[in-house]
Amino acid sequence: MSPKYTIGLDYGTNSVRALIVDTANGREAGTAVWDYEHGTAGVILSRDPNLARQHPADYVKGAEVAIKRALAGAKKNIRGFQPQQVVGIGVDTTGSTPLPVDQNGQPLAFHKKFTKNPAAMAWLWKDHTGVAEAAEITALAGKIRLHYLAKCGGVYSSEWFWSKILHCLRTAPEVFAAANSWVELADYVPAALTDTESPQKLTVGICAAGHKAMFNETWGGYPDAEFLSELDPKLGELRRRLCPRVRTVAEAAGHLTAAWAGKTGLRAGIPVAVGAFDAHLGAMGAGVAPGTLVKIIGTSTCDIAVWPDTEKLADIPGLCGIVEGSVLPGYYGLEAGQSAVGDIFNWWVNYIQPGGRTPLSHADLDREEAKLQPGESGLLALDWNNGNRTILVDQRLTGLLVGQTLYTTPVEIHRALVEATAFGALTIINRFQEYGVKIDRVVNCGGIAEKSPLTMQIYADVTGRPMQVSRSAQTCALGAAIAGAVVGGVYQAFAPAQKAMTGLKAKIYRPNPKAHTVYRELYPLYRNLHDAFGTKAWNGNLHDIMKKLIEIRSRVRK
Amino acid sequence: MSPKYTIGLDYGTNSVRALIVDTANGREAGTAVWDYEHGTAGVILSRDPNLARQHPADYVKGAEVAIKRALAGAKKNIRGFQPQQVVGIGVDTTGSTPLPVDQNGQPLAFHKKFTKNPAAMAWLWKDHTGVAEAAEITALAGKIRLHYLAKCGGVYSSEWFWSKILHCLRTAPEVFAAANSWVELADYVPAALTDTESPQKLTVGICAAGHKAMFNETWGGYPDAEFLSELDPKLGELRRRLCPRVRTVAEAAGHLTAAWAGKTGLRAGIPVAVGAFDAHLGAMGAGVAPGTLVKIIGTSTCDIAVWPDTEKLADIPGLCGIVEGSVLPGYYGLEAGQSAVGDIFNWWVNYIQPGGRTPLSHADLDREEAKLQPGESGLLALDWNNGNRTILVDQRLTGLLVGQTLYTTPVEIHRALVEATAFGALTIINRFQEYGVKIDRVVNCGGIAEKSPLTMQIYADVTGRPMQVSRSAQTCALGAAIAGAVVGGVYQAFAPAQKAMTGLKAKIYRPNPKAHTVYRELYPLYRNLHDAFGTKAWNGNLHDIMKKLIEIRSRVRK
Repeated sequence: MSPKYTIGLDYGTNSVRALIVDTANGREAGTAVWDYEHGTAGVILSRDPNLARQHPADYVKGAEVAIKRALAGAKKNIRGFQPQQVVGIGVDTTGSTPLPVDQNGQPLAFHKKFTKNPAAMAWLWKDHTGVAEAAEITALAGKIRLHYLAKCGGVYSSEWFWSKILHCLRTAPEVFAAANSWVELADYVPAALTDTESPQKLTVGICAAGHKAMFNETWGGYPDAEFLSELDPKLGELRRRLCPRVRTVAEAAGHLTAAWAGKTGLRAGIPVAVGAFDAHLGAMGAGVAPGTLVKIIGTSTCDIAVWPDTEKLADIPGLCGIVEGSVLPGYYGLEAGQSAVGDIFNWWVNYIQPGGRTPLSHADLDREEAKLQPGESGLLALDWNNGNRTILVDQRLTGLLVGQTLYTTPVEIHRALVEATAFGALTIINRFQEYGVKIDRVVNCGGIAEKSPLTMQIYADVTGRPMQVSRSAQTCALGAAIAGAVVGGVYQAFAPAQKAMTGLKAKIYRPNPKAHTVYRELYPLYRNLHDAFGTKAWNGNLHDIMKKLIEIRSRVRK
Repeated sequence: MSPKYTIGLDYGTNSVRALIVDTANGREAGTAVWDYEHGTAGVILSRDPNLARQHPADYVKGAEVAIKRALAGAKKNIRGFQPQQVVGIGVDTTGSTPLPVDQNGQPLAFHKKFTKNPAAMAWLWKDHTGVAEAAEITALAGKIRLHYLAKCGGVYSSEWFWSKILHCLRTAPEVFAAANSWVELADYVPAALTDTESPQKLTVGICAAGHKAMFNETWGGYPDAEFLSELDPKLGELRRRLCPRVRTVAEAAGHLTAAWAGKTGLRAGIPVAVGAFDAHLGAMGAGVAPGTLVKIIGTSTCDIAVWPDTEKLADIPGLCGIVEGSVLPGYYGLEAGQSAVGDIFNWWVNYIQPGGRTPLSHADLDREEAKLQPGESGLLALDWNNGNRTILVDQRLTGLLVGQTLYTTPVEIHRALVEATAFGALTIINRFQEYGVKIDRVVNCGGIAEKSPLTMQIYADVTGRPMQVSRSAQTCALGAAIAGAVVGGVYQAFAPAQKAMTGLKAKIYRPNPKAHTVYRELYPLYRNLHDAFGTKAWNGNLHDIMKKLIEIRSRVRK
């Protein structure tokens, strides 16, 4: 029997990747990345560091170019490979990345009138312009719909669907008025490939709707019209025009059109799975299962766990969301995360240590940092340069560094930043455990898990847990390809598909007991800073922080 | 009548300067700087950032070389200048910089046995090895001699005389045992020039003894033997061997020996004034008087004020000292300071932004920083990379930076560090005022006052006060030369000598009201961080700090 392949289409912040995978074993047959051509120019530049938008034309062209190039690659790599062997497509994207669409479901930005209007673009996940609106939604829900908040960690984020739409309504009313509806990028792409963009045909994913738009079957889907109208009557009206068909990635959004088949060389009619977010399908591609926490570590971090929907589960404060079926059908998908990890390291390398004759690359820093002992620098940092996603759900937080002397080096500071993200990771693991979600295993994936053994070792030393790394370097696209394999009929369920198509690297980062002992002393200091600057409830004194850091430093140096 | 000149000898941390001054008008006839030849090698290197020592041979050779070169310069600059026209010498040094001496008053380090023993060197002002001993002395005084603490701000510092000697006794008992006594560098140099090192002939200055060794006439001089013996019986014994002749800079320690006259070309027998610290004579050279605060801004900062000894003065908590006659005879000398100012800027430039192809110099940073508005960066820092001298008197403190985003630049951080030192300066001014010492005028001197107009402008904007700058770039040496003019008989008192020999620059940095308004919002945030990390008494929550910084940033950017 000839091998069957599926394609995972992975839409990142700056580029789209197509990955062609052998469904029998997860082997990668071909892959291609296409950088959005509007590039950083498409992300409308502004002095407002909160604004991040992208022209949706890039998403359509990106699918075509990336698929064609990946197919060409597979033909080179695999003798006898035929595009007709591709039996399904899955799609993952960043999110919440909503875009306004017209009555036919076409992006408003495709209309000449709006093609340069930032509000008509896709509002990228990292757009934080809706901070005030997020606070307003949180406050209203806190007053009249507490159960909405219970499923999204207690705070509705500025990164999410309704905050962005309400901000558009308030600040770009002409765009809001012209839009018939708003669609998540994760839903728009499968619809575009299958000609199901129109409101009558559209299917949307539970992942985006549940995690970002407060969609929940227990309260009848989206937030009720009365609630939305309280924010603005026009939001109440919008609700009626939102798609009622909400599905998991186990189902097809539609089938590839003849036009797309013609453009790409794929078979017309192959199923395209309902879309989901990169982190959720990334967790799928890294083998997420009950007891396994998957950390997708990139510029920011998503931490994904699952929990059988047949068992009782508490609402967990500070999580980004608890949504039935958002990762795997039959399980609650639990999402947590850190607003910046790689972005903080990039900040240090690119902004603070810019390209001189002897600049330090990430690899240089890692090498030098490996010579330092935990506690040796006397430094402690908070990992909040881009806010805190979990457990504080607060974008209006910033970085902090304490312990500098007149001899502190860039290497020491960079290591303190890595440690800060590790402490942030531990805080998330602890929160899961405190609410009964036992974590037996941590699997890491993403660029940093691949490229920085030092970071992985520090994560192991700080958390006191072994760190494993996903075999595939492209777990998001692999997860999308797994969804393609299920809708394509290769597998009847996700568990066997995961078993066949995912795996772990042989190398396991095991905690060093001596290092872990020092980090057990440092973590309470981190937690004190975390609570003092991040919560209203904390009350106390930080007089001991600098002194304890000095004491630990002296001890370690001896 | 032929002009009369005096010489100021100014011993810094890394070099000694000789300055020849026309006593009629303060004009500089010649000057020379000699870098200690033991250099940084003489400062015994150690992984312990608390240790800082210097070989005293540098001090003797430095006087000879610097005086000879300055005289040569004066001969070139001034037609008809003759070394015989020099009528007196004054000496200022860093401090507390005690060195152990033998029975003849010669440095122990001159003995072959001890010439490479770090404990036998001069213990530089910035040596913090005696932290534990300082805490012990403070605790004991807090129990049985509260009045000792009242005159030194409530805390005895690790930078001071007894902490260092007790630390030597504890950690290098062979050096302590070999030493007949300990002499401050400020007292050793005048003694060496006048052959009065021996215990029978030695005169010591009230400045060092009063500010660093808890010498006070009201309690009979040095701390009593019972108190010292409680710390260690050997310290009680040492007290008997300390010099009882304690004088102000208005008196001569002795007269230049024929040997020194021969070496330098000066007239034998000219008077050498009793020595004092650089900051105190620097204040003299900058025109200190009641109502005038002199800030000597270098690697660290000394803030000096005076108060008539005929008027009542409260004990001011957190000051480094209140000592009668330590600056001007007839006045209490009040000393405050910041443990690092220029050192923090140097740290940023030399450690964090090291020499690449496009490194930023101090001047580059100043130029770029001038483009930023107060509050625009969203950053706030504490100026504690080397501890806090006033008002917390605590070396076991470290730096802190808060407000970093993913876009924060080195320029923004450097400006935040400058602002932090300005907030620290304001905290000192406020402390003086709270205790009735009215500050009508602030005069700055030292390298940063000379070279960084931006820093001076920020100090004006933060404090809301005009910043004036001393006319002389060498106020410490000028102050020493003024002492030389008084002991040399040119003037009968310091006031007329200061009037003739000191002055201010025409340029006055006046506060910008708009900038000051923003800093008035930022200062309470600084003060909250200051008290939360620096005091035990503070109790509260820092939840608003990051949010207010973001709010101010947004407002300023609009």
